Amino acid sequence: MEDIYLNAKTASYKLTSLSDDVKNKALLKVAEAIKNNANIILEENKKDLLLAANLLSENKLTKALYDRLKLDEEKLNTIIKGIEEVISLEDPVNKTLWATELDKDLELYRVSCPIGVIGVIFESRPDVVPQIASLAIKSANAVILKGGIEAFKSNEIFIKLINDALKTIPEFPENSINLIKTREDVKEMLKMDNYIDLIIPRGSNDLVKYIQENTKIPVLGHTEGICHIFVDEHADLSKALKICIDSKIQYPAACNSVETLLIHENISKKLLPELISEFKKNQVIVKGDESTISIVPKIEKATEEDWETEYSDKIISIKIVDNIVEAINHINTYGSGHTDCIITENKENSDLFMNLVDSAGVYCNASTRFADGFRYGLGAEVGISTNKTHARGPVGLEGLTIYKYKLYGSGQIVAEYSGNNAKTYTHKRIIK
Amino acid sequence: MEDIYLNAKTASYKLTSLSDDVKNKALLKVAEAIKNNANIILEENKKDLLLAANLLSENKLTKALYDRLKLDEEKLNTIIKGIEEVISLEDPVNKTLWATELDKDLELYRVSCPIGVIGVIFESRPDVVPQIASLAIKSANAVILKGGIEAFKSNEIFIKLINDALKTIPEFPENSINLIKTREDVKEMLKMDNYIDLIIPRGSNDLVKYIQENTKIPVLGHTEGICHIFVDEHADLSKALKICIDSKIQYPAACNSVETLLIHENISKKLLPELISEFKKNQVIVKGDESTISIVPKIEKATEEDWETEYSDKIISIKIVDNIVEAINHINTYGSGHTDCIITENKENSDLFMNLVDSAGVYCNASTRFADGFRYGLGAEVGISTNKTHARGPVGLEGLTIYKYKLYGSGQIVAEYSGNNAKTYTHKRIIK
Repeated sequence: MEDIYLNAKTASYKLTSLSDDVKNKALLKVAEAIKNNANIILEENKKDLLLAANLLSENKLTKALYDRLKLDEEKLNTIIKGIEEVISLEDPVNKTLWATELDKDLELYRVSCPIGVIGVIFESRPDVVPQIASLAIKSANAVILKGGIEAFKSNEIFIKLINDALKTIPEFPENSINLIKTREDVKEMLKMDNYIDLIIPRGSNDLVKYIQENTKIPVLGHTEGICHIFVDEHADLSKALKICIDSKIQYPAACNSVETLLIHENISKKLLPELISEFKKNQVIVKGDESTISIVPKIEKATEEDWETEYSDKIISIKIVDNIVEAINHINTYGSGHTDCIITENKENSDLFMNLVDSAGVYCNASTRFADGFRYGLGAEVGISTNKTHARGPVGLEGLTIYKYKLYGSGQIVAEYSGNNAKTYTHKRIIK
Repeated sequence: MEDIYLNAKTASYKLTSLSDDVKNKALLKVAEAIKNNANIILEENKKDLLLAANLLSENKLTKALYDRLKLDEEKLNTIIKGIEEVISLEDPVNKTLWATELDKDLELYRVSCPIGVIGVIFESRPDVVPQIASLAIKSANAVILKGGIEAFKSNEIFIKLINDALKTIPEFPENSINLIKTREDVKEMLKMDNYIDLIIPRGSNDLVKYIQENTKIPVLGHTEGICHIFVDEHADLSKALKICIDSKIQYPAACNSVETLLIHENISKKLLPELISEFKKNQVIVKGDESTISIVPKIEKATEEDWETEYSDKIISIKIVDNIVEAINHINTYGSGHTDCIITENKENSDLFMNLVDSAGVYCNASTRFADGFRYGLGAEVGISTNKTHARGPVGLEGLTIYKYKLYGSGQIVAEYSGNNAKTYTHKRIIK
């Protein structure tokens, strides 16, 4: 079994030398293969759905997971469009990030390059396979994919079609795109820190947490998305109303939807009655602290536990705060560093909030739902990260790259730059 | 004990808002404090040295560690000069890395910011305390330092002087620079993934390995430095000679000194006799594979173990290879991804080598000893990383930063950009 990892590592070394042209040709072949074999894919998917329907009827699978498992013509078209979009993106590797002359004929280049081997662990959505495969191809990384057992047949047919397509490109190294299948395989994968350079979990908080706690390999992702909106005393209340509602109801299950509102006490009496009535109109359950209840009595009481909860549902908690500092401290204490917003017309307060709130996204007067790679214009999204190293927030193709230093000399040695009569470095910026 | 971590985290939130001016003022105060209290520092250091001398005589401490522990006027001047250099560097945080208009009056900025709380674990060199403290101040990170027990008094006086100096700057948050003291403290520190965002170990391979294996916190650093030079058949032999010698003997204990030479067989007979004789003149022990011995008989035989060994000493192993691909494969198999060099006048071969060798530094015709933050012109070095994520190679102040996304809107919600009549994103680059 270790072979798959060793082979992927070997493939990763070869991938680095592919030109953007070859990678785009390979992506085009993959898109064509999916287009030309839609029937076969849907047939295999049906086999998964049949088994899943049984699990559903036995309550061993949720309706949401079943829906995500299901492929149709429309989903396949979205997949193909996604691959075409990846083709159109700028090559993220072999870019000179900067260059410095250290001395005459001694030039240092920082050049972007692939990370190496990426492990991706996901749940029932089989469309993750072509999506991640295309991102890997474009960024010249090898990948080891592990999908949910319920999508077994769908994942397998995708991997087969992708690898058959890649085989038609002679320069493309074999073993670049790999699939592992069992839970035992995952346990082994998490130990492969000699071969895998980065793990990306895509799925429930529990899945991400399990992976973070069971591997030494760097993990890119986020567990919770406990997002906040602070409505400042200098807020435009119509903006506040609009943004609070959108951030909660536009897609309540998303990680970037808001969970807790912090309302400045000076505007709480003006804002809360209308805001809460608007929430109720939209079937949102509202929970509030004592001060909130004293203004709008007919709501549930929020407890300490609420401040730590990602509802992922039409539920919102509200707390009234004395000032902006209390709001910032609340967010830095209970938040998950995902996306947090201030509604204010006061520049000083917006600066204070956006500098001091320690989150991947800090917003002023915009819905938290904008936290997304496509909306940010990144072109493709690998995932959203709440890490404090490597990549933070919505992560595009760039997150699958690192850099290497290339030094071009003409025989220079360090002894010449040391001791008496040492030559000095010029350190002249050549690029950027 | 958890208080120290919580307090450091709280300090880290406040640090982010400091201007470069305030940070530079603080650094100046620190430099002055060290200058004005040189006698006290050297006195405290003497107490450490007295105990260390006993350990030395009992063979419980090496001479090298004893030497590193010792401070003198010259080392203190170097420390002060180092702080002045950090003051002169560009502020690494609050830089707009790029900005995009998502739509009219909806602007996204990617802005560099501190990582948060950095843990630094180091061995006997007490000069690490003011060095890391100054890098932390400039990058607005809080730090928790853990030094070797043998430098207890020296570390303590540095921390006291630094914190007394910082107290004279009213804007500077307390608890930014912290020292922990015992091995038990380290064990606890490694569990503080809720508070510490990055660990930087500075010391032996064993120390780094221990830390990597015992924490979930990201670790920045390297264990081994098994660096290679491949002398291609198209090499300029005088350059080869000069670079091979410098890379080995200029400072054999350094992580960027060369351990294994790979010699193309077509030039081996021409190069090896002179090269090996030059090594022997410089008291370097030479080990060779069978082919090498067949050319220069009077050397030790190199075994498989040699290819995996960082000698950190005046010892070198030599292997003759059939071609460049064998050299590249050897390096990717046995190397540590630190720094590897090709000597060649052939551009195609240099490109192949520099693209396919998966190391932080890939060099053509220059000594591996150039792998260093100061030589690269980074201004200050946090350490050298062989990680494949976040920061790779010599790491400057930038390695202590990450970024956040700041989104400035004017009431926009995502619902307006979805469904029928959806507004479209402009995704116009504003900066860069």
